[in-house]
Amino acid sequence: MDKFKNKDCIFCKIVAGEIPAEKIYEDDDLFAFLDITPINAGHTLLIPKKHYENIFEMDDEILKKISIKLRDLGTSVKGAMKAGGLNIGMNNSPVAGQVVPHAHFHLIPRYLKDGHKHWEGRKYKEGEITKVAGEIRGKVR
Amino acid sequence: MDKFKNKDCIFCKIVAGEIPAEKIYEDDDLFAFLDITPINAGHTLLIPKKHYENIFEMDDEILKKISIKLRDLGTSVKGAMKAGGLNIGMNNSPVAGQVVPHAHFHLIPRYLKDGHKHWEGRKYKEGEITKVAGEIRGKVR
Repeated sequence: MDKFKNKDCIFCKIVAGEIPAEKIYEDDDLFAFLDITPINAGHTLLIPKKHYENIFEMDDEILKKISIKLRDLGTSVKGAMKAGGLNIGMNNSPVAGQVVPHAHFHLIPRYLKDGHKHWEGRKYKEGEITKVAGEIRGKVR
Repeated sequence: MDKFKNKDCIFCKIVAGEIPAEKIYEDDDLFAFLDITPINAGHTLLIPKKHYENIFEMDDEILKKISIKLRDLGTSVKGAMKAGGLNIGMNNSPVAGQVVPHAHFHLIPRYLKDGHKHWEGRKYKEGEITKVAGEIRGKVR
């Protein structure tokens, strides 16, 4: 199956130029553009041109390329927006907040007192962390 | 400067076995362990053993390795925790929510109705998106 373009995918259409977007970067494999509903101005999305639904589908070669571009594009976004920091995020599947089912990384410039609050963690119950660690280690390849 | 271990860094001490942690994975370059204040149970941190402060300092080779391990370990975490989705996140610098200044990726299993709300975006003002895109493109290498 040729997954390079999914005809129903809005991000595939942006890559193909069928839907307009503020393009930030493009090469043979990757494409970056501004999110139109930014957390902060300059919020950029970096995607593989090929239609992968999420990180679980992505092959080694595209992951290697995208990770280096995350660093370089992140440096550009932070610098251009004169930000104090940068969040990188990737939501995999709708329950994790993924709205468009084409794998994408968010690059979000951040500022002191920009008002965005991080989720608060909780404490594990007695013995729970050891059990959880064992379950995950049992699945590690 | 040998940055493999920073003597004041809590994550360097975890890698060295000087501070206990629930280890999930280890190889020559990478280390993963459970966050002790999880957003959801199974919340895992994947780090380079070498002390990089953030993604901006990381070299190509470690980025390539960590990106593939993010996918594989993410698959393990999601599977073991029977999660419906997975957030991957990296906070670079304190204003972006980075608490420990040793580069780390969060892997957070997610569930329907687990109560964690994503930040809401805003709309760009008239003409703003074009100006912002131009500024970032001017910094892209």
